[in-house]
Amino acid sequence: MPVNLSAPTPDSLHPVPGVRLGCTEAGIRKANRRDLTLIELAPGSRVAGVFTQNRFCAAPVQVCKKHLASGSIRALVINTGVANAGTGEPGLAASNTSCAAVAKLLGCDAAQVLPFSTGVIMEPLPVERIEAGLPACQAALKADGWFEAAHAIMTTDTLAKGASRKIGGGGTAITVTGISKGAGMIKPNMATMLGFVATDAAISQALLERLVEEVADESFNCITVDGDTSTNDSFVLIATGRAGNVEIADAGSPAYAELRAAVTAVAQRLAQAIVRDGEGATKFIEIAVAGGATKAECKAVGYAIAHSPLVKTAFFASDPNLGRILGAIGNAWGNDPALRDLDVTAVKLWLGDVLVSENGGRAASYKEEDGARVMEPAEITIRVDLGRGPAQGKVWTCDFSYDYVKINADYRS
Amino acid sequence: MPVNLSAPTPDSLHPVPGVRLGCTEAGIRKANRRDLTLIELAPGSRVAGVFTQNRFCAAPVQVCKKHLASGSIRALVINTGVANAGTGEPGLAASNTSCAAVAKLLGCDAAQVLPFSTGVIMEPLPVERIEAGLPACQAALKADGWFEAAHAIMTTDTLAKGASRKIGGGGTAITVTGISKGAGMIKPNMATMLGFVATDAAISQALLERLVEEVADESFNCITVDGDTSTNDSFVLIATGRAGNVEIADAGSPAYAELRAAVTAVAQRLAQAIVRDGEGATKFIEIAVAGGATKAECKAVGYAIAHSPLVKTAFFASDPNLGRILGAIGNAWGNDPALRDLDVTAVKLWLGDVLVSENGGRAASYKEEDGARVMEPAEITIRVDLGRGPAQGKVWTCDFSYDYVKINADYRS
Repeated sequence: MPVNLSAPTPDSLHPVPGVRLGCTEAGIRKANRRDLTLIELAPGSRVAGVFTQNRFCAAPVQVCKKHLASGSIRALVINTGVANAGTGEPGLAASNTSCAAVAKLLGCDAAQVLPFSTGVIMEPLPVERIEAGLPACQAALKADGWFEAAHAIMTTDTLAKGASRKIGGGGTAITVTGISKGAGMIKPNMATMLGFVATDAAISQALLERLVEEVADESFNCITVDGDTSTNDSFVLIATGRAGNVEIADAGSPAYAELRAAVTAVAQRLAQAIVRDGEGATKFIEIAVAGGATKAECKAVGYAIAHSPLVKTAFFASDPNLGRILGAIGNAWGNDPALRDLDVTAVKLWLGDVLVSENGGRAASYKEEDGARVMEPAEITIRVDLGRGPAQGKVWTCDFSYDYVKINADYRS
Repeated sequence: MPVNLSAPTPDSLHPVPGVRLGCTEAGIRKANRRDLTLIELAPGSRVAGVFTQNRFCAAPVQVCKKHLASGSIRALVINTGVANAGTGEPGLAASNTSCAAVAKLLGCDAAQVLPFSTGVIMEPLPVERIEAGLPACQAALKADGWFEAAHAIMTTDTLAKGASRKIGGGGTAITVTGISKGAGMIKPNMATMLGFVATDAAISQALLERLVEEVADESFNCITVDGDTSTNDSFVLIATGRAGNVEIADAGSPAYAELRAAVTAVAQRLAQAIVRDGEGATKFIEIAVAGGATKAECKAVGYAIAHSPLVKTAFFASDPNLGRILGAIGNAWGNDPALRDLDVTAVKLWLGDVLVSENGGRAASYKEEDGARVMEPAEITIRVDLGRGPAQGKVWTCDFSYDYVKINADYRS
C-alpha cells in the first residue's frame, strides 16, 4: 500500500511541445503488459542526464553517457523486464542494436538515441523483441502519451508516477512534465530508478547540464528505500525549446530560478512517489538534518538513519525507539569521515514536533506518550540538529516491513 | 533457529587460573533472570580492550576506556536489560557508582573496575539494583563460573556463547576461555556485542594490547548482522599471568604465535556464534574477498555484500540472484573510495564452488541449477576476486528473514 500516493490522472500530465511518446507490448519478459516505450524528441531538443555511480553500471547507462557526449538526441527507448546489467560485451551490443533499430525507424543516427532498461540483472536482453516491437511504438506516438508511458515503465511499482507543472516563463507559458519508476532501490537495485522530465523551455546546453545536477541533488539524490544503488539508475532532463521563450543562459536570471523551481517540484514529486511506493512501505519518513558543517555531512547523517534496519523496523512498529536513531547518528562517520569528531552532546533530535534528545541523552521534557503519538501517522519527520555549522540536507525514506522481505525473497519466482 | 550452533557444555569451558565469575538476579529490567555478572581478576592481571566506534558510545564504554588507561584492573561488572547509552551525565555517574560499589566489596579502587551494560538504549540505569545485587555475585564467585556467566550476559541471544582452548605454551599449559553475547547488532545495536576472553598466560601489557587488536580484526571485526554498530560493543582480553610461562614480550616469538592462534580461534568461534544466532538468521554466510589492493578494500566489498538487504533477502529465499551481489560490489566504493576505479571486468564471483560471474557478466559455464544447488545449504560461501592486488579479507553474516523484522518491530513490547 503506497503511503499517501495516488496515480496521476491522464489530464494532469500536460503534453510538452516537441515530445511524443508511444508504448507497446513487446513481450520482453512477460506477456500482456506494455513493456516498451519510445519517446521521440523534436529536432533541436537538448538533453542532459545523471546516472548511477554503481561500478557495475548497466550497458544502456554506458551507451547513454557516450551518446549524450556526442550530441543532439532525437529519441529515448525504454524497456522493462530485463535490466541489461551485468551482461558484459553482449549487453553493450544489444543496447547498440536497439538504438540502431530506433534510428532506422526515425531516420536519425544511432548515436542520437538513448537506451534505458530496467528489470532483472544478468539476464540477456532479448533485443529482437525490442526490434519487433518498435514499429508499434512508433505508430502509437502521441503528444499526450505521458500517462501510458508512466504505466509502461513500471516494474514492481504498484502505482504509476507522474507530475506536471505550468509556469509563466516571464510572459511565455512553459510546461514541465515528468514520469518516474522505482520501488525497490532508490539507491535501488532491481526495481531501478528511472526518471524522465521534459520541458519546452529554451535553455542553453550548459545550463541544462547544471540544472539536471542541481535538481537531482534536491530530489532523486535525497531518497532511499534500501540503500542499494541500482546498476541502471538514470534521470534525464529534456528541453525541446518549443515554448518560444528567450533562451535561458544565465544561472543568475529570474527565468532560470523559475524554471529550476518548477523542474525541482516535478522531480521531488516523482522522487517522493518512489519512496511512497517503496517495497512494503507503510510509512513515509522525512529526515531533515541541520547544523552540519557541510551539506554532505548532513546527508551522511540522514542516510545513516534511513539505512539502519533497526530504525526502519522500529518505524514499521510505530515504536519511538530513540536509541536506535541516536545509534545511527553515532555511526554516520562511516558515511562521511568528517563526522568522526561529532560532539554528541551538541546534537538535538526531534520526532515530529517533539524534542526527544539533547545533551547526549533523553530530553528532560520528553514523555514516551508524546513519542508514541508522533510515530502513529503514515508521514513522520525526523529532525536532527548537529550543532556544528550552517549546512542542512534532507533524505526521504520509508520503513522496513514484513512485505519488504516477502517482495524481495519472492521477486524472481 | 541458530545456524549450526549449539550452546557450550559446562565442562567445555575450562577455568582460567586467576579468574572467578559470579552471577545473580538483580531484577534490572525483568524478574527471574540472571542479569548481573561479576568477574574478579587476581592481582597482577593485565587487561586490554577494543570498543565501539559509535560516536554515541555508552557511558560504561567511556568509563572502561578511562579505567583501562589508568592501570591494574581487578574486576569486570556486566549488566543486561539496560545499555546505559544515550544517558548523558547521569549515565556516567551511574557507571561510576557501580564501579565504586564493586571496589568497596573487593577492596580495590573504583578505577580498577570495568563496567559493561547491554540492553535498551536511552533508559536510565537502575544502579541501586546493581548495588543491591553485587553481594550475591561476590558470594557466587567461582573459577568454573564461565558457563553461568555465558547465560547471564545474554539479551536477545537464543543460545549462550562460549569457547575454550588449551595449548602447550612451550612446555607450560596455557588456557584460553571466552564468552560472548549479541544477536541483533554486530555492527549491532540493542543486542550489543560483548566479548570477554581470558588466558592465564603471562604476556606483556604492550603485546596484550597488540593481541587484542589483531584478534578483533580477525574475529569480531569480521561480522555483521544488520550493519548497525552498537553504542556498547566491547571486546576485552584478560591475561592473569598465572600459567607460569616465561612472559611473552616478543611479537615475533613462537610463543606469541601459538597464543595468538588460540585466542583467535576462541574469538572467531565466539564471533561466528553471534552471526549464527543473528536475529531471524536461517543462513550463515562467509564472504571471502581476495585480489584487493588492500585488506580494507576487501572488507569494504565484503560489508557491501553483507549489508545489502536485497542480497540478504535473496539468501533467505535461497535464490541465486547474482545481479544483487554484483550490484553490491559495484556500490562498495561507498565504503572505501579507493574502489571508485574498480574495473568490474576483472572481477570474478563464486557461489560455493560455482564460478558465476566474470568479464562483467554471467560466466559462460554458469548454469542456474548449479546456483540453486549451492544456495540450498544453511552455510554458504561467497568468494570474490577483485583482480587488482594481493590482499584479502573476510566477512561473516547471516540472511534477512521475516523473523528479523518481527524481532525488531516487537522488541520493546
